[in-house]
Amino acid sequence: MSKIRVGIVGYGNLGRGVELAIGQNDDMELACIFTRRDPAQVKPVGEVMVASTSQMEEWKGKLDVVILCGGSATDLPNQTPQVAKMFSVIDSFDTHANIPEHFARVDKACKEAGTLGLISAGWDPGLFSLNRIYAESILRQGSTYTFWGRGVSQGHSDAIRRIPGVKNAIQYTIPVEKALEAVRSGEAPVLTTRQKHTRECFVVMEENADQEAIRQAIITMPNYFSDYDTIVTFMDEDDFAAQHGGMPHGGFVMRSGITGEGTRQMIEFSLRLESNPEFTASVLVAYARAVFRMAAKGEIGAKTVFDIAPALLSPLSAQELCATML
Amino acid sequence: MSKIRVGIVGYGNLGRGVELAIGQNDDMELACIFTRRDPAQVKPVGEVMVASTSQMEEWKGKLDVVILCGGSATDLPNQTPQVAKMFSVIDSFDTHANIPEHFARVDKACKEAGTLGLISAGWDPGLFSLNRIYAESILRQGSTYTFWGRGVSQGHSDAIRRIPGVKNAIQYTIPVEKALEAVRSGEAPVLTTRQKHTRECFVVMEENADQEAIRQAIITMPNYFSDYDTIVTFMDEDDFAAQHGGMPHGGFVMRSGITGEGTRQMIEFSLRLESNPEFTASVLVAYARAVFRMAAKGEIGAKTVFDIAPALLSPLSAQELCATML
Repeated sequence: MSKIRVGIVGYGNLGRGVELAIGQNDDMELACIFTRRDPAQVKPVGEVMVASTSQMEEWKGKLDVVILCGGSATDLPNQTPQVAKMFSVIDSFDTHANIPEHFARVDKACKEAGTLGLISAGWDPGLFSLNRIYAESILRQGSTYTFWGRGVSQGHSDAIRRIPGVKNAIQYTIPVEKALEAVRSGEAPVLTTRQKHTRECFVVMEENADQEAIRQAIITMPNYFSDYDTIVTFMDEDDFAAQHGGMPHGGFVMRSGITGEGTRQMIEFSLRLESNPEFTASVLVAYARAVFRMAAKGEIGAKTVFDIAPALLSPLSAQELCATML
Repeated sequence: MSKIRVGIVGYGNLGRGVELAIGQNDDMELACIFTRRDPAQVKPVGEVMVASTSQMEEWKGKLDVVILCGGSATDLPNQTPQVAKMFSVIDSFDTHANIPEHFARVDKACKEAGTLGLISAGWDPGLFSLNRIYAESILRQGSTYTFWGRGVSQGHSDAIRRIPGVKNAIQYTIPVEKALEAVRSGEAPVLTTRQKHTRECFVVMEENADQEAIRQAIITMPNYFSDYDTIVTFMDEDDFAAQHGGMPHGGFVMRSGITGEGTRQMIEFSLRLESNPEFTASVLVAYARAVFRMAAKGEIGAKTVFDIAPALLSPLSAQELCATML
């Protein structure tokens, strides 16, 4: 059987993760990486063709699905609809508030071109969304909680780095253990922002910077830190490089529900990831298989993970699934 | 909009749970409970018509989906295919080894009658199966673990009750905390039966029975207990009734995977249920909505939870899902 021919647009941490994840799937092959940079500057892990995004048109009919690996802020809002005019696509668009608008734009492009576009397939949105819909559909009465972390927030890390006197910084979002326990107890607590997450910051200062001024600038920063208990630790550059080079993340989706006459039922899903981009990439690659299969059956338009039957993600046959996984 | 008209076959703990769960879903109504007993002997929680299973034929065209609430050992293997000749159906058939055979029988009945039959929709098989397929499709390299409990095993409880001198007994399956921790550590341990689960038994003896003989009969019982660390506690009838009347259950599905070059990723799903039958009932009712929707679109034949797109479970519209749950 011929393999599913995959293209990647954008080769940062996520694109690299997708390349590696495709290597774990025998029924797929990475046909080409597209970049807006000079293709000669992109060094994939394996032997893969690298081309300019301006040449994508030439690949029409030669790719089954294109995985978009750009950022949600500025890349994907334009890239996904644009590439969907030529190929069936999948992205991990994760600006929750703008998902309906993004969906509409991708849906329009797909329907005009006769392609399929799956948006927001990662872990939140993505696997966490799936757990929310399953849990809320099953336990109709109850409360749903999402906690993030322990993991790196790029937005918060960037915000710290913009403070004068800061040379480098990283911020970890940490779910408050006491809050997790309160939810698990089945008491369906109402939790404030501060009660749910702590923010831990590791900062390398410029020489002669004012440590206390930086600490105050962080913990009082509106939106980012002022509503949280924030821990700031200063360290030297070597320790920082040694201890904070990874991109761990994870989190919890919990639903505390009631059935019958006051019977407590608890559903909990969690991820503990050493690499956020590699995991997101693995989700994208599994869903790329579903995109290929649905597009091959003639389905078009924008889709979300809610529209995808789980069997479409697996390389196993229906018989194998029934016999081994059910 | 008219409501989804649901029928129930069998009114034990599960059937009662389904009745209660339907009450939590505004878009559904329980039209009739069918029983093999004398209908006058069945006392539903609410005001619901009760009829004999022999009268089901008269309900053809008046029910959108029938939820089968019998047992997997002797009821469902015959009931599901039989009722599928008249109605679209759903069951929670849970004898894992016989699923392929059950699937084939239901598929044949459904295709002949033009109905849809969803089998094995509970939590294991069911939600646990979903977590296995999602986790294994995403983390292609890794190990999957399923732990059950803390919860009541009816089969093991029955086995103890058959021992001479035992008046009443209940058996709880308990996942070994050390094993859970070993899996969470990401070390992908190979675990023996004994290392994964402990079995805890509470026993009420007949007068003058031999306590030590009963204990030995339990802990040496092949298949049921001899491969496990088994704790046996004797108690009087009143304490037993007070402490062991519930039907709690739950468990864990965990996948410890590797992406990229040795990056550890962990997916964990767990349930903690005060009532196993009420929870299973809630799963059945959510999936009954999907059965109704798929059958209304003309889909026929046997299905499993792997074939059901998550959006079909929710009463919310695609727009609402996209805006609130993604």
